[in-house]
Amino acid sequence: MAQFFDQIDKIAFEGPDSQNPLAFKHYNADELILGKTMAQHLRLAACYWHNFCWNGQDVFGAGTFGRPWLKTGDPMVLAKQKADVAFEFFHKLTIPYYCFHDVDVAPEGNSIKEYVNNFAEMVDVLEQKQAETGTKLLWGTANLFSNPRYAAGGASNPDPEVFSYGATQVFHALNATHRLGGENYVLWGGREGYETLLNTDLRQEREQLGRFMQMVVEHKHKIGFKGTLLIEPKPQEPTKHQYDYDSATVYGFLKQYGIENEFRVNIEANHATLAGHSFHHEVATAISLGIFGSIDANRGDAQNGWDTDQFPNSVEELTLVMYEILKAGGFTTGGFNFDAKLRRQSLDRYDLFHGHIGGMDHLAMALKKAAVLIEKEFLADTVANRYRGWNSALGKAIQSGEHSLQSLAALTLSQELDPQPVSGRQEWLENQINLVLYR
Amino acid sequence: MAQFFDQIDKIAFEGPDSQNPLAFKHYNADELILGKTMAQHLRLAACYWHNFCWNGQDVFGAGTFGRPWLKTGDPMVLAKQKADVAFEFFHKLTIPYYCFHDVDVAPEGNSIKEYVNNFAEMVDVLEQKQAETGTKLLWGTANLFSNPRYAAGGASNPDPEVFSYGATQVFHALNATHRLGGENYVLWGGREGYETLLNTDLRQEREQLGRFMQMVVEHKHKIGFKGTLLIEPKPQEPTKHQYDYDSATVYGFLKQYGIENEFRVNIEANHATLAGHSFHHEVATAISLGIFGSIDANRGDAQNGWDTDQFPNSVEELTLVMYEILKAGGFTTGGFNFDAKLRRQSLDRYDLFHGHIGGMDHLAMALKKAAVLIEKEFLADTVANRYRGWNSALGKAIQSGEHSLQSLAALTLSQELDPQPVSGRQEWLENQINLVLYR
Amino acid sequence: MAQFFDQIDKIAFEGPDSQNPLAFKHYNADELILGKTMAQHLRLAACYWHNFCWNGQDVFGAGTFGRPWLKTGDPMVLAKQKADVAFEFFHKLTIPYYCFHDVDVAPEGNSIKEYVNNFAEMVDVLEQKQAETGTKLLWGTANLFSNPRYAAGGASNPDPEVFSYGATQVFHALNATHRLGGENYVLWGGREGYETLLNTDLRQEREQLGRFMQMVVEHKHKIGFKGTLLIEPKPQEPTKHQYDYDSATVYGFLKQYGIENEFRVNIEANHATLAGHSFHHEVATAISLGIFGSIDANRGDAQNGWDTDQFPNSVEELTLVMYEILKAGGFTTGGFNFDAKLRRQSLDRYDLFHGHIGGMDHLAMALKKAAVLIEKEFLADTVANRYRGWNSALGKAIQSGEHSLQSLAALTLSQELDPQPVSGRQEWLENQINLVLYR
Amino acid sequence: MAQFFDQIDKIAFEGPDSQNPLAFKHYNADELILGKTMAQHLRLAACYWHNFCWNGQDVFGAGTFGRPWLKTGDPMVLAKQKADVAFEFFHKLTIPYYCFHDVDVAPEGNSIKEYVNNFAEMVDVLEQKQAETGTKLLWGTANLFSNPRYAAGGASNPDPEVFSYGATQVFHALNATHRLGGENYVLWGGREGYETLLNTDLRQEREQLGRFMQMVVEHKHKIGFKGTLLIEPKPQEPTKHQYDYDSATVYGFLKQYGIENEFRVNIEANHATLAGHSFHHEVATAISLGIFGSIDANRGDAQNGWDTDQFPNSVEELTLVMYEILKAGGFTTGGFNFDAKLRRQSLDRYDLFHGHIGGMDHLAMALKKAAVLIEKEFLADTVANRYRGWNSALGKAIQSGEHSLQSLAALTLSQELDPQPVSGRQEWLENQINLVLYR
Repeated sequence: MAQFFDQIDKIAFEGPDSQNPLAFKHYNADELILGKTMAQHLRLAACYWHNFCWNGQDVFGAGTFGRPWLKTGDPMVLAKQKADVAFEFFHKLTIPYYCFHDVDVAPEGNSIKEYVNNFAEMVDVLEQKQAETGTKLLWGTANLFSNPRYAAGGASNPDPEVFSYGATQVFHALNATHRLGGENYVLWGGREGYETLLNTDLRQEREQLGRFMQMVVEHKHKIGFKGTLLIEPKPQEPTKHQYDYDSATVYGFLKQYGIENEFRVNIEANHATLAGHSFHHEVATAISLGIFGSIDANRGDAQNGWDTDQFPNSVEELTLVMYEILKAGGFTTGGFNFDAKLRRQSLDRYDLFHGHIGGMDHLAMALKKAAVLIEKEFLADTVANRYRGWNSALGKAIQSGEHSLQSLAALTLSQELDPQPVSGRQEWLENQINLVLYR
Repeated sequence: MAQFFDQIDKIAFEGPDSQNPLAFKHYNADELILGKTMAQHLRLAACYWHNFCWNGQDVFGAGTFGRPWLKTGDPMVLAKQKADVAFEFFHKLTIPYYCFHDVDVAPEGNSIKEYVNNFAEMVDVLEQKQAETGTKLLWGTANLFSNPRYAAGGASNPDPEVFSYGATQVFHALNATHRLGGENYVLWGGREGYETLLNTDLRQEREQLGRFMQMVVEHKHKIGFKGTLLIEPKPQEPTKHQYDYDSATVYGFLKQYGIENEFRVNIEANHATLAGHSFHHEVATAISLGIFGSIDANRGDAQNGWDTDQFPNSVEELTLVMYEILKAGGFTTGGFNFDAKLRRQSLDRYDLFHGHIGGMDHLAMALKKAAVLIEKEFLADTVANRYRGWNSALGKAIQSGEHSLQSLAALTLSQELDPQPVSGRQEWLENQINLVLYR
Repeated sequence: MAQFFDQIDKIAFEGPDSQNPLAFKHYNADELILGKTMAQHLRLAACYWHNFCWNGQDVFGAGTFGRPWLKTGDPMVLAKQKADVAFEFFHKLTIPYYCFHDVDVAPEGNSIKEYVNNFAEMVDVLEQKQAETGTKLLWGTANLFSNPRYAAGGASNPDPEVFSYGATQVFHALNATHRLGGENYVLWGGREGYETLLNTDLRQEREQLGRFMQMVVEHKHKIGFKGTLLIEPKPQEPTKHQYDYDSATVYGFLKQYGIENEFRVNIEANHATLAGHSFHHEVATAISLGIFGSIDANRGDAQNGWDTDQFPNSVEELTLVMYEILKAGGFTTGGFNFDAKLRRQSLDRYDLFHGHIGGMDHLAMALKKAAVLIEKEFLADTVANRYRGWNSALGKAIQSGEHSLQSLAALTLSQELDPQPVSGRQEWLENQINLVLYR
Repeated sequence: MAQFFDQIDKIAFEGPDSQNPLAFKHYNADELILGKTMAQHLRLAACYWHNFCWNGQDVFGAGTFGRPWLKTGDPMVLAKQKADVAFEFFHKLTIPYYCFHDVDVAPEGNSIKEYVNNFAEMVDVLEQKQAETGTKLLWGTANLFSNPRYAAGGASNPDPEVFSYGATQVFHALNATHRLGGENYVLWGGREGYETLLNTDLRQEREQLGRFMQMVVEHKHKIGFKGTLLIEPKPQEPTKHQYDYDSATVYGFLKQYGIENEFRVNIEANHATLAGHSFHHEVATAISLGIFGSIDANRGDAQNGWDTDQFPNSVEELTLVMYEILKAGGFTTGGFNFDAKLRRQSLDRYDLFHGHIGGMDHLAMALKKAAVLIEKEFLADTVANRYRGWNSALGKAIQSGEHSLQSLAALTLSQELDPQPVSGRQEWLENQINLVLYR
């Protein structure tokens, strides 16, 4: 069959001085950084949905991309054509992983039976494509938000039959992910939230969501899936408010249902900023709570209040995120998935390559800069020095639970403590980082 | 001593047709609503800080109010003058409760000894004032954010001596609250957060905060304080990011340190909106998590990104909040504290009365409207009806844990489930509420 | 032909005590308020697009409404079916006006010729429908943002052929509006903005937009259209930044191209809030600049950063807006158009009535409350009193240009001026308004 | 007199490899870039207010810096001590310019007479300091927002005596700026806005502001001041809404009062973002409107909704801003003034150097990167190519006014125009910029 990207062979690393827009300038898969290759550090993935299921439409206008496989026709034929193009793309991009929703790869059909059959057939296709190209599955997931039946939620739906329908999709998607060697399984609850509190029972919906997640855990262990279960936080959109608001909220939810050791978070940059946090904050918070899992790499627009899902390009921001990840030991099963889409005007098919080549190069730049931050140690040293008091006798006694309010009040008074503030050195630290970033 | 508000006697209820700006039109303390008096429902409090410690200054300009007790002079004399005016105000306003920080009522002094002595002396004054006026203490708290020693936090400070100093303040403030018959004790961590992640160890600071809160719990039980411990969430300001971001975040924190049955939240309207939530959301969320405690009644400005702390005046919003509280059984030890300040231009001393009379009337209006919502039952009925499926055999089986992903997948397929969405009736519900609000 | 809303006859006014959800409780078209009927004051309109062209889809999911005329079929047959339902709706709702885009009412076709022919044929249909039902046209407009050709803008497109295509649409849409007796013509530049400054020439695009608007003015006069030309401000979405950001920005644009007496603004509540302003602010600003024209009545969600276009239901907000409009003398050719859409879950066809009945009732409530504010005069009196100094000799001399910096400096020094601040009475004013709103 | 920064001599350029935190790594004043020195391009200034008038206090806490000249004492003695330290700082920093408000440098006193005398005496001091150190004045301004008399505004105050008082300050501040060789004079209307629309007459206040600005223009010409008059936009804070919201709003205001050729804008990065714009946007917009003047260099916090005034450190952002300025021909009388303040925790006196050294280095990095963007020409070429159609016969005819809606409609139809969208190449452009930024 004819190739869709027929002007391109494999994207190669050509180094920073290359003038070839369709080459990597910084992403050099096999380059060693702090003892691991770039590929091992970054564990990059491209997604099925934005790249191959979206035609460039937005709320105010029709699609601009004209992808042939998104036109009318026999759904299974089109799904296979889509898979051909997707794997052609993954392969030529030399990206090691991909990610998908069940309904990205297979037509939903008109009944649960058709769904099951279509999906099973397409999982065979994916398995074969993976074998042919060497592309691996970073994670699979099920879409419980696009079909009208999920208008009022999936697991949190007022109708238990919708819950059952959703459970059926997750059953098949998790099984498929297991079979395809997926390294993680993601749950993003796009409609697990509310439109108005007036018709919503928050406690009831939370209970449903808790039970649903427990069932996912039980099923994972039953089938022997060794990958990581991931919840992807988002504060709102499409709902007015989504239950998995941010990492801290997800942590409380996991604790409530006793599954905090079974799930980790898949942090998306644009979801972080929509929640009022920096991307850096969400990653650092998840790490500090022991629930960091994976990243949906993209960026939002600082002036726009919706999910713009642009390709990541702030090396300043990515470097700090990468630093946190390196400091925490790096990814285990997670990785950087480009949950990013082209701008609606980027309608040239090769723009898909520009977006991803840029994203991969920017993450590679950030990795190299972050490695310098690790090596230079001034950040780690400054932090260690700032908290050194907690290694003193007083600090240790407090932390070990030896002190009470009363004993501390007595101590403070008897010793006439009068601690003085010291500089936090923020400007100096910011300067040091820029000296690493820019030459 | 001469009275400060010498043009005013006690504020009286005169009913909706009164033309007297210094009378209540809706707040009628003894009026029965759903079996309790307005006073019992609302449990209103005025605060010490905005009313008597703030002189109208902001970041861009000097104070405009010219309060005599905020001028230079002997600190203890001024503190007693301040107490005179404060209790004159509480009494004339007929507001049953007040709230304070330790350093609102007593001068900090130049050492921990002076702090302890000054505070002890002023607690005696407060006790006498309470006895004279009948004003009761809704809650006390300690200020661990204004003094430069707390620039990098109180409990989360990198210096354990600052932690000790803060513990000393809380020790004395909790004891004082206990002695003064306070019904709650509040912890607001204005500086418990970070300015930059570059110099911050999130995990370390969280551990410090966790231990601090455990110590507060231990001390409460030791002294036999029967009131409620409250954490007041706020997302940022003065810090870039505060750890008690919102109710859901506080819930996760409490679960982590095993103190979720020992603390409840004190929700402030303006903090809710700064966190990206509606006030209604925060109250409903806290109730659904079983941690709802008390309210700091105010409002923010929808176009300004800082804490404007205006007096609450949206009866539309307050009615929905009140409805949630009534539905949940009402306050136990909590109440509505006006954590609200005058506009800087409202420099007439009687503007303090206008702000509070309005706030009290608006809450009374909201209470009356919310009682109608309770009585009319259409909200409760609509919600019950919407989730009725969860009382079906399938719904009960799922909730009781009888189903797995696999059994639900089998059931969905065998029964060929095809659940259809139904209208959420949002516009109809909104219309019904406005018909209650407006005649 | 069978009626779509076959369970409904005309919506009637039944008064505040009616229990009929499909009746007006407050909107009583012929009721006199300050000497005009409600209908004359409000000049209400329903829109074609949200009600009859949108199927309930959003960025994350498929349509939920299942409207028959939005399914596949012969485009002109479906367009006529749509018109039947639209006018059935307008008529049964008893709303006096409607609004449309060219491509709402007629299929775009596959060429400019088909566009012209289809539109001409549908304008005949609309003319007949208007005659049959008595529904009038508040305004028409042309859609220069949905078709892929407008991805980079209409008038501000880098390609002058796109400019020409857009001019052709406006030519036909303005002619049609004139013929159908439309009282205004609107220009909303949804794609007149930029996605990235990197590829944008701001000055060039502004010049194009300026010339385009001048052409619209010239054509209006040429054909003798007596209605008002309106620009509808919006800050962003679908673009990252739109040139018609808000009323103040539009004013500067109109001044630059010398057309400030030819255009007025059509203010949308949700666009105001997306621009960082209150709805009240935008209306008051446009009035103060002499460019207030008409209103797109809806509301946004205070926590969501995109255009939610909900039905207006804050009577608190609407009352202040209505007060400004009444104070300014009321609408001339403008009116309140419900640029509001159902929630995606509101999929019952009668939800369209609930949305509009609520909106009409809420505006009627606001009108009645605003009339009381006008009659009570305390707002006008307070403002007049606050600025009374400008009627003094000094105030008049300054305003008439008699003073210079130097003469004022001399006067201030010689008279030793020491003006003191006075209370702005904000809390008192807010209380007074709530006493009018709530009984 | 003893020096305040006694550990420091002059800051020197030591190049990127220097390990000295108190040296420049990139700012090399005499280095030639595109034919001008860095110093000529950047025209850097430090400000008086944040550095020498602010003690580290915020709304929630007391000052942390302990500057000796901000303690109690004789105001004129302290003012001279402050001037000593300020010019010691400017000189050691080797920054060529400074900026001040009247009341930064001289005590306000208790009457207009004292103000005039104090200011006159301090202007003498400044003149001498400038001569001694060689530091020049980028701009002066008057503070019409901090004193309680300005609580309701300066020029827009309801009291014409306040207007007169403000005019007196501007008279003296503009005269002083002229005498001191200032290259610009700035008007920032921090209180020229409203707290509530309820007590505000927008049209009246706008007229007052218009007349005030005209008087400033008249006085400038009268005294022969050759510098530029600058208005500094800000959307809100301290007011709820400020009239000089953003550059586009200021443009409309200037056009209304016929002074668009007399004023330019002083754009502050943090004010831009508070107004919902990117810094880049505000600069590009002002340039496109012909009113670009100068820059207040700082940055806000993307998650905080108030003016954080941090030192600028995003070289990514600064490079694009610098590119726009270079493309437009560079500054004339304007420059980069660091309207930036230390974090409250940065209480070491040498943190003032870290903040400014970083800011200067970051602007130098941005200048070098922007020069590469100019030299590489791919941005300019891409834009020129994108709009090339406007050089066609059709494009020129439209722009020259030869076409009407009717003639374009006829042309479009007769030629059956069917323009197709082309890629905007956004991702490719973004990649190219990062290849320039990072090596």
